[in-house]
Amino acid sequence: MNKPTTLSPAHATLESIATPALVVDGRTLERNIERMAETARRAGRALRPHAKTHKSKEIAALQLRAGAVGIACATVSEAEALAAAGVTGLLITSPAVGADRLGRIVKLNREADVTIVADHMQQVAQALALLQPGDPPLRMVVDVDVGQARTGVSDLAAGMSLAKTIAGNGQLRFAGIQGYAGHIQHIVDAAERKSAAAKASAVLQTFATALQAQDLQPGLISGSGTGTHGYDLAGPYTELQVGSYVFMDADYARVVDERGDPPPFSSSLFVLATVVSVNRPGEVTVDAGTKALATNGPPPCVILGAPPGSTYKFAGDEHGIIGIPPGAQAPGLGERLLIGATHCDPTVNLHSTFHVIRDDGVEKWAILGRY
Amino acid sequence: MNKPTTLSPAHATLESIATPALVVDGRTLERNIERMAETARRAGRALRPHAKTHKSKEIAALQLRAGAVGIACATVSEAEALAAAGVTGLLITSPAVGADRLGRIVKLNREADVTIVADHMQQVAQALALLQPGDPPLRMVVDVDVGQARTGVSDLAAGMSLAKTIAGNGQLRFAGIQGYAGHIQHIVDAAERKSAAAKASAVLQTFATALQAQDLQPGLISGSGTGTHGYDLAGPYTELQVGSYVFMDADYARVVDERGDPPPFSSSLFVLATVVSVNRPGEVTVDAGTKALATNGPPPCVILGAPPGSTYKFAGDEHGIIGIPPGAQAPGLGERLLIGATHCDPTVNLHSTFHVIRDDGVEKWAILGRY
Repeated sequence: MNKPTTLSPAHATLESIATPALVVDGRTLERNIERMAETARRAGRALRPHAKTHKSKEIAALQLRAGAVGIACATVSEAEALAAAGVTGLLITSPAVGADRLGRIVKLNREADVTIVADHMQQVAQALALLQPGDPPLRMVVDVDVGQARTGVSDLAAGMSLAKTIAGNGQLRFAGIQGYAGHIQHIVDAAERKSAAAKASAVLQTFATALQAQDLQPGLISGSGTGTHGYDLAGPYTELQVGSYVFMDADYARVVDERGDPPPFSSSLFVLATVVSVNRPGEVTVDAGTKALATNGPPPCVILGAPPGSTYKFAGDEHGIIGIPPGAQAPGLGERLLIGATHCDPTVNLHSTFHVIRDDGVEKWAILGRY
Repeated sequence: MNKPTTLSPAHATLESIATPALVVDGRTLERNIERMAETARRAGRALRPHAKTHKSKEIAALQLRAGAVGIACATVSEAEALAAAGVTGLLITSPAVGADRLGRIVKLNREADVTIVADHMQQVAQALALLQPGDPPLRMVVDVDVGQARTGVSDLAAGMSLAKTIAGNGQLRFAGIQGYAGHIQHIVDAAERKSAAAKASAVLQTFATALQAQDLQPGLISGSGTGTHGYDLAGPYTELQVGSYVFMDADYARVVDERGDPPPFSSSLFVLATVVSVNRPGEVTVDAGTKALATNGPPPCVILGAPPGSTYKFAGDEHGIIGIPPGAQAPGLGERLLIGATHCDPTVNLHSTFHVIRDDGVEKWAILGRY
């Protein structure tokens, strides 16, 4: 990583935490939040950071305090949990279908400041069928497929028709467009990532121009991610839905810019683990496995408490193997290590609690809206 | 899979469940439990099924009712949760280190029927330092590394010394040996898996023989798993710690026997998902991604509700893409699918609740001891 972390497994407060546990370096977290806020501020773009990464009302509050206009959510459960904590400016970024999910959204919209996305006329019709007279209008954004091929309209005519239907109904408000290019955030090569980001921007710009030509002003043009946010400032985005920058991980650590520099954020998310077996030369076993660290990412690029050059490999549900470089002193039985996150979002989702370490102690923050 | 599942996404009770959700086919679950119990019974071996798979007191109760002598646990949290539910015969299969974890075990041992494993003298010394006069003796099994290179003593002399220390202390009871060959459970080729199982058995047999020669009777010789249990009946095991057989998954579906037949258990674990986006030809998007299905396994081999030959691929935290074979009718927006588990243990761990479907409705069972 580009910046040394301030956290050490010898930190006194870590001793009181049962392992494996999710640990956040509070100072690094706040520095990451401030750095992204500053980037958006200077570029004149709004920030609506994504809560799918952290699922935390405390981190959402830090982001809002740093100037974010609201918080993006992947699920209704995340939005419900954050709304209950008083978070405003919620944007649910996945299209919602069915009376159950849309019913929860209509209910949430009576009490909270929420916007949803749609990519199909049927979703709009289902929402209208659930809205009662006297309900506040439901704000809707048209989700555009900018190349990820996951959700969104891919066809300009379909998108225009959806926007017109939304704008033409008094119970709805047309709030703009969204285009999330999740497929390109982790492209390691800078030139390739930049070119892919420009392509996604061009798709969004086409939709925006067509809407404007029909007097359908897209108030929000929402999208972007940690990997492309620098390049996306050249695009039409009015706001950035960046998520991972708060924690970073082994996946993002290799996503470098043209100069070969990693993103200007540092690792703040770790799994605290204990060495539980030491019977083999050159390696020790820790109590953090596939139930503590997400498997869909590269191996951890930071292991604090083990000699430099140590490696981690998964060894089942509850164990991992720390490989020790030849000649280095292996950590002893019972010693603790801080293992950098593999892939931050799904690693967070494996835990109920953040243990946030600051100079003056540890705070526990709940991880909300897990299944 | 070898047996058609009895479950259908058209099952009336599934309509009431918010997606994504973990669903268990109750009838198949019970048939799997009975089948493994019968195998052990016929072979004259005890069954101590592993709760790391299900983390459920209800499933543990079904296993005990079918004749299991107890339940194996990977973590102290699992053992505490099952003990609180009245489960007896608990074996914690990971070596425990440190005053915190061993302190919880010593406390648990005052109220519950628990056995632990050790692979290092320091663990024994730490446990002894925590035991109070008047505490019931703590039963300890020596964990043997049978080739997985994760935990366990690899050296016969070290194992003998550990067993002697345990047996020689009035506050402890030497209960036997454990050797878990997790590394060979998923070997697809039957002959290769059989040969690997024989090697693991031989290591355990060597330890057992040496202990017996010193009048240290290993009451328990515990180990095995779903992939090798048939071959392990030729080994020295007094009991089988099988876990995955209750649910099966895409990983185990390809682990065939010499005749090319899959294990005699059927898929009972599914993620219920809703089609949320249908804008691309040949595929639809569902609301189950890396936070609903474990990523460390092959793609699901069963997708109920989609045309035969449909495929699943991950598309981020909250989404997956169902590929539809050419010419087949894609499921519509809002339709529900049952997606077979990729890797059962870590998939279970992503959810708080099993929705167990039976002819007469749905029951909710809590998933216990998650981080």
